[in-house]
Amino acid sequence: MNTSTSSFSRPLRGIVPPMVTPLRARDELDSAGLERLVEHILGGGVTGLFILGTTGEGPSLSYRLRREFIRRTCALVGERVPVLVGITDTSFQETVQMARHAADAGARAVVASAPYYFPAGQPELVEYLEHLVRELPLPLFLYNMPSLTKVSFDIDTVRRLADIENIVGIKDSSGDMSYFHQLLQSCRHRSDWTFLIGPEMLTADAVLAGGHGGVNGGANVHPGLFMDLYRAAEAADIAAVRRLQADVASLGALYRIGRHASAIIKGIKCALRLMGICDDFMAEPFHCFRDAERAKVRRILEEMGLLSEQG
Amino acid sequence: MNTSTSSFSRPLRGIVPPMVTPLRARDELDSAGLERLVEHILGGGVTGLFILGTTGEGPSLSYRLRREFIRRTCALVGERVPVLVGITDTSFQETVQMARHAADAGARAVVASAPYYFPAGQPELVEYLEHLVRELPLPLFLYNMPSLTKVSFDIDTVRRLADIENIVGIKDSSGDMSYFHQLLQSCRHRSDWTFLIGPEMLTADAVLAGGHGGVNGGANVHPGLFMDLYRAAEAADIAAVRRLQADVASLGALYRIGRHASAIIKGIKCALRLMGICDDFMAEPFHCFRDAERAKVRRILEEMGLLSEQG
Amino acid sequence: MNTSTSSFSRPLRGIVPPMVTPLRARDELDSAGLERLVEHILGGGVTGLFILGTTGEGPSLSYRLRREFIRRTCALVGERVPVLVGITDTSFQETVQMARHAADAGARAVVASAPYYFPAGQPELVEYLEHLVRELPLPLFLYNMPSLTKVSFDIDTVRRLADIENIVGIKDSSGDMSYFHQLLQSCRHRSDWTFLIGPEMLTADAVLAGGHGGVNGGANVHPGLFMDLYRAAEAADIAAVRRLQADVASLGALYRIGRHASAIIKGIKCALRLMGICDDFMAEPFHCFRDAERAKVRRILEEMGLLSEQG
Amino acid sequence: MNTSTSSFSRPLRGIVPPMVTPLRARDELDSAGLERLVEHILGGGVTGLFILGTTGEGPSLSYRLRREFIRRTCALVGERVPVLVGITDTSFQETVQMARHAADAGARAVVASAPYYFPAGQPELVEYLEHLVRELPLPLFLYNMPSLTKVSFDIDTVRRLADIENIVGIKDSSGDMSYFHQLLQSCRHRSDWTFLIGPEMLTADAVLAGGHGGVNGGANVHPGLFMDLYRAAEAADIAAVRRLQADVASLGALYRIGRHASAIIKGIKCALRLMGICDDFMAEPFHCFRDAERAKVRRILEEMGLLSEQG
Repeated sequence: MNTSTSSFSRPLRGIVPPMVTPLRARDELDSAGLERLVEHILGGGVTGLFILGTTGEGPSLSYRLRREFIRRTCALVGERVPVLVGITDTSFQETVQMARHAADAGARAVVASAPYYFPAGQPELVEYLEHLVRELPLPLFLYNMPSLTKVSFDIDTVRRLADIENIVGIKDSSGDMSYFHQLLQSCRHRSDWTFLIGPEMLTADAVLAGGHGGVNGGANVHPGLFMDLYRAAEAADIAAVRRLQADVASLGALYRIGRHASAIIKGIKCALRLMGICDDFMAEPFHCFRDAERAKVRRILEEMGLLSEQG
Repeated sequence: MNTSTSSFSRPLRGIVPPMVTPLRARDELDSAGLERLVEHILGGGVTGLFILGTTGEGPSLSYRLRREFIRRTCALVGERVPVLVGITDTSFQETVQMARHAADAGARAVVASAPYYFPAGQPELVEYLEHLVRELPLPLFLYNMPSLTKVSFDIDTVRRLADIENIVGIKDSSGDMSYFHQLLQSCRHRSDWTFLIGPEMLTADAVLAGGHGGVNGGANVHPGLFMDLYRAAEAADIAAVRRLQADVASLGALYRIGRHASAIIKGIKCALRLMGICDDFMAEPFHCFRDAERAKVRRILEEMGLLSEQG
Repeated sequence: MNTSTSSFSRPLRGIVPPMVTPLRARDELDSAGLERLVEHILGGGVTGLFILGTTGEGPSLSYRLRREFIRRTCALVGERVPVLVGITDTSFQETVQMARHAADAGARAVVASAPYYFPAGQPELVEYLEHLVRELPLPLFLYNMPSLTKVSFDIDTVRRLADIENIVGIKDSSGDMSYFHQLLQSCRHRSDWTFLIGPEMLTADAVLAGGHGGVNGGANVHPGLFMDLYRAAEAADIAAVRRLQADVASLGALYRIGRHASAIIKGIKCALRLMGICDDFMAEPFHCFRDAERAKVRRILEEMGLLSEQG
Repeated sequence: MNTSTSSFSRPLRGIVPPMVTPLRARDELDSAGLERLVEHILGGGVTGLFILGTTGEGPSLSYRLRREFIRRTCALVGERVPVLVGITDTSFQETVQMARHAADAGARAVVASAPYYFPAGQPELVEYLEHLVRELPLPLFLYNMPSLTKVSFDIDTVRRLADIENIVGIKDSSGDMSYFHQLLQSCRHRSDWTFLIGPEMLTADAVLAGGHGGVNGGANVHPGLFMDLYRAAEAADIAAVRRLQADVASLGALYRIGRHASAIIKGIKCALRLMGICDDFMAEPFHCFRDAERAKVRRILEEMGLLSEQG
């Protein structure tokens, strides 16, 4: 097990991009693309990297590919920023095994949502995580993603889980800011806890409210924008926040090109391909954008000045 | 690969119980219990056996355990009835690999729902299944389970998939009888297709409507009751159907003891334990009923005469 | 108050069409159309008539128009069949006043769903109906319509309400046949209760299961078909049921032309206009089909032989 | 019609409490309580008053009572702050008539959500509001309340409606801050539009993001707290915002005492009764808190120092 395990400052403040998984084909990594993508994102000055989450298409990948991807990414990142690895699975045992693999590869933390086939009741969810944490070699972040897991972590559930030392924070992708405010109020006794938010339109709100930053998909494409937004909110510079927020809203046009749940990931991967960073192959059941949508992505990137150098 | 692959009569008519997975502990089969359970169920004269579905807690089990369970069950059943294996997964590759394992073990068909983390759009779902079927060594049954997968197979989607020869039927657990009627109307060109229904209160309706039978959890506990119900409906003996339906409703009290989504599986496993058939250990995130609930299960079984021989 | 108040045989067996409300303009009845429609429907031999329900666009109409419509319809129907009047409202007082008006006009029963702005809890729902029934001059049918009211009548709630003498039955439009079966099992002590089902694909299932008939929108267009279906199911003539069911499925194509929640009502009204029976004006927020959709409706009606006499 | 019709400054900035409707019995106002409540709320320095909304139990009241309540409230408030009247109804005609009554009584604006029985599609919703605005004697605020109306105003729908001069703003109670941010971005061309938010935990976020204030139920109980919060956010005083936010969170304990959808209104009315302001009678289908819940409300109010003067 890697000895740097818990060597990240807590709370973790800033932007932790949920990195996409560059693929060349079904079950095959785009290795060169991965290297460029890691450098592109770290070049934006981000705080950490979250892999194999929703944006990373984690649940769609074979276990073999997930392990390979963890190893390569941790090696590429090195000690520069902490790597957090999504280990959510429907099977307890497979979750634990992926966490062990992550620890061996040098990841600094793991991230788990509620199991997502069977919806656990809240008491079952508490017990599940109590059992899970005992088996984990790394600190755990909770991942609240009710639109995909069908289960939300109730405020009382999180408060109870906050009594477990090795649970160190939460990433909330519910989109429910009232819930996020309640989380902040309820877990104040854990001054080391990290509160991160998923939806990128809410990152500034979350930081102004006392949260620590964002896990924002758009930071794959434009990591610097999100770090700027984070810093403006941290400094309570409202004018700057509103200006940067407008840019984030413009980038959000990327996510409304497709029609299905996959539209966000497709938009990001398509943008990265047009920017010359990595392939836009998608894991099943999704497929990449075709020409018509690609042209729209190109226009958005051009308007934002993100294709200028590729011109 | 087993040469008896497609040697089951089509459509498959009758009751195909979705067998629970008897466990002794986390990641450990209750082998003796499995043997008794297989004999108990087959003793009821059922038509087939469906393993690693929802009732089988398939997604909660480690891959190792799933493979062991497939091997053992196929060996125990032998040629007596066809074994159908649930292969649904969020990863395409893992789905295919489990199907290959099932074929090697002697299963006769596999069963797949929509991938259940990312909700596919209907065109994506069609494409996903077209790709999947090409890789499968066994005929495929669709499994419509929108409450857990978040995605329903639209009528038009099923009609398109019915053009693929190696897709041979559907198990509908939506609970939506209007949908089931529309399925029957829409796929009449596939006279070999099997239409099975999940919710056990609807088995008679489904057969009277022209469907072929049920995949009913209660058949773990009382397989003969469901075969009797199937036969009464097949014979259009309405008086018998209503009488047996009342018994099915009484058995249904088992499923309303617990409060969460797991209540059905817990009720069945608890009943099987009280009947001396197998352990009631549940895979995480669930746990078995405790004493208070167990007493209620006992009372229901006694009222139905299902504990008489156990004294 | 009309003295024939409760003079309908119980349970009420057969088809009780939920009549559309023929309109010429916003807030104006199509009186001649109403007269033709009543004769068209009663000509099909139906058992009763349900007005101001969902298909009748009841909640969209002004109170003045609702009162006029009740008066005229009751006068046109006379003693031929019982008229049931939808009185559901978000306001208790307005509900009661509409019931009184219905009684004065000669209606035989009223029909109420859960109040549909605020979702009542189940104990609140029981209390609400207990209070309501005391004020009503006519027997009450419950109307379970959770997709529009956001609240389902739980089985236990219905069982409790079945202890109130002046509640005489339920119309279930949930589409959940397991629920309908449970209703039948739970309220057997009220042998005078009427159990009717809304979705027309489920009418035969409901009657075969022991229910009493259907409140089927399609019976506005083709009342005889639904009476035939009812009689075939009542006689357990499964072959006839399946044949007629296929016709009902064909008619159902009418409801899939539009895209929004209003598609069913628009399809029915458009068909009635093409058949020369009444205007297809819709109350806001809906509007009638335009030419493209109307052509599709015409084709469906022609294929079913329902436009033959109109040349 | 009152000549002061549009004499409120736009955008309307600050807190516009959604006033509860004080009742003594079914269909009977608590007139003395209403007088005290109006003075209590205006004493907190609020910007306006919104009556007959969700918190005002508008849809549960008889039309007669609604009209009386509008008249009395407008008379009590006089010219001090603008009164906004909720006119949402399922019937177009009744909506218009209530708006006319509001104008005659001296209200300054009306507020309408989507019709809430039949869910309109977005094109239907646009057309509905276009028709409605033509008939209205007062400026209209949109009211986005999808959890109760089942229909959200899509961003594109609002953008189209923002082209209509007499639609002057929106109250968003969706709880979806990403949506609120998008609203702000999409309707910037209407510099006179008012953007208010419903959920009180989000008022500061909304103002920091560029919105204009809150329509917060808790301002019935503690209007000054919400005005302080508004002013702190307007001044970008983040430390003060967080301190006041904690008080708002404490007040929110009032809303979690009951279990059903009515818990918020019951908590507010119970607090107002304990504070000696008005009766806590609830319109059907709800009823007021009983002793056990009332004791909890008392404790929360005492801890917040809101019962000190009442001894």
